[in-house]
Amino acid sequence: MLIIGELINGMYTRIAKAIAEKDKATIQKCALDQVKAGAEALDVNCGPASADPISDMRWLVETIQEVTDKELSLDSSRPQSIKEGLKAARNKVIINSTTADLEKLKELVPLAKKHNAKLIGLAINSKGIPHNKDQRLELAAGIVTYCVEQGFNIEGLYLDPILMPLNVAQTQLKDILESIHEFKLLSQPHPKTVIGLSNISQGAKSRSLINRSFMVMAMAEGLDCAILNPLDKKLMNAVITSEVILNNKIYCDSFLEAYGKIQSPL
Amino acid sequence: MLIIGELINGMYTRIAKAIAEKDKATIQKCALDQVKAGAEALDVNCGPASADPISDMRWLVETIQEVTDKELSLDSSRPQSIKEGLKAARNKVIINSTTADLEKLKELVPLAKKHNAKLIGLAINSKGIPHNKDQRLELAAGIVTYCVEQGFNIEGLYLDPILMPLNVAQTQLKDILESIHEFKLLSQPHPKTVIGLSNISQGAKSRSLINRSFMVMAMAEGLDCAILNPLDKKLMNAVITSEVILNNKIYCDSFLEAYGKIQSPL
Repeated sequence: MLIIGELINGMYTRIAKAIAEKDKATIQKCALDQVKAGAEALDVNCGPASADPISDMRWLVETIQEVTDKELSLDSSRPQSIKEGLKAARNKVIINSTTADLEKLKELVPLAKKHNAKLIGLAINSKGIPHNKDQRLELAAGIVTYCVEQGFNIEGLYLDPILMPLNVAQTQLKDILESIHEFKLLSQPHPKTVIGLSNISQGAKSRSLINRSFMVMAMAEGLDCAILNPLDKKLMNAVITSEVILNNKIYCDSFLEAYGKIQSPL
Repeated sequence: MLIIGELINGMYTRIAKAIAEKDKATIQKCALDQVKAGAEALDVNCGPASADPISDMRWLVETIQEVTDKELSLDSSRPQSIKEGLKAARNKVIINSTTADLEKLKELVPLAKKHNAKLIGLAINSKGIPHNKDQRLELAAGIVTYCVEQGFNIEGLYLDPILMPLNVAQTQLKDILESIHEFKLLSQPHPKTVIGLSNISQGAKSRSLINRSFMVMAMAEGLDCAILNPLDKKLMNAVITSEVILNNKIYCDSFLEAYGKIQSPL
């Protein structure tokens, strides 16, 4: 399970302020805290309030790289911002993300190929969010097909079924779980799968419980990667336990301590 | 999700003592505690130390029925003990259990049909426990076939894949999860599925965490019923949350309180 820490995101007031004030210490502490808690990659998102998402992306990438060599997930809907992040990146990179729109694919798939970056592909297009599993599969298949045509290594493609909030789209969650399983059948070798976990509990009570329950279910469906809050200890313990149940990590009596041990940031 | 409370079982010293001393109060409190915590049925097992499992089963059934009308899961490998429980039962009954052995099926399927009882069918036979998914499916298919031949209502059949402990059979757990999904495809209408949840964490540390993680995964695979400890509040909250995620219960902000409310014992 590739864990991408979600916390360096300008939608959080504290991070938006740090970006605006070029406060390196806050960003670097947020990076290190997540790595210590088990994140193997870090999402980097300037947020909606960024006055200059291009130079802010560059600054964030440079700032984070000063303290960790973990993979960076360059998270922006603006290809220009992702390109600027790629220029600054020495660490490995995940491009987060392309939609299923041809114009986006045309721009981002060659970029991912050129930079040997992983690519997150969202099962969504400019017509809006999918309403059922068939629409998700159709959008995902379009992304897979384009990547195959362009010779992009499909094992570096992470398909995202678009996780919807429980309190507004409860009837879609079973479809989303099944999509995680079925996306992997779209090609041989299999594409990988990713979710933005916290979306499920937007606006809900008992957020952590909802998040970790869905995470465990998604793992049973074969999920490969999640963007989540690694500082949620209960969530991380559920992830470790599920890895052991699914035989991805060997059981030992002290499995929580063994696999939850503090990671080295560099 | 049909929750069968597991706690009235003579393998627990306290319960064995209550059975030996015919201490009604302890048994009745254990029954009511489980019902209040959300159990819709109660397992009734005299345990290995019972000097007379036939009269003990009768006494347990009579004792429990004095305080609740919840369904009783008559749990014994001895058909004679189950028969005695059936004689005493006024409440609805689950026969727990038959194996895939023909002699057991011949005795217990007609009994379940006659008493309009549910029936738990274990994917196991006298040759020993199954080692993989194919063996589980073969054993389960044998049970389904026999039930269909005998005209037993297949929707009252609960197939158990035999949940193994994580610390001795880690490599089998994914097979067991997939069996839960695939058992349901064995006939139309579908048979139901059940697990004895606590088995997974026998001898392990972090038992409650392992139990609830597996439970959530099994629910995602379509599990219908579990024999578990309903007094484990974290487990019950995970079950409720999973029911909401899977759209089996309607979401509301107070879903934990709404669905976790104290049940009436009668």
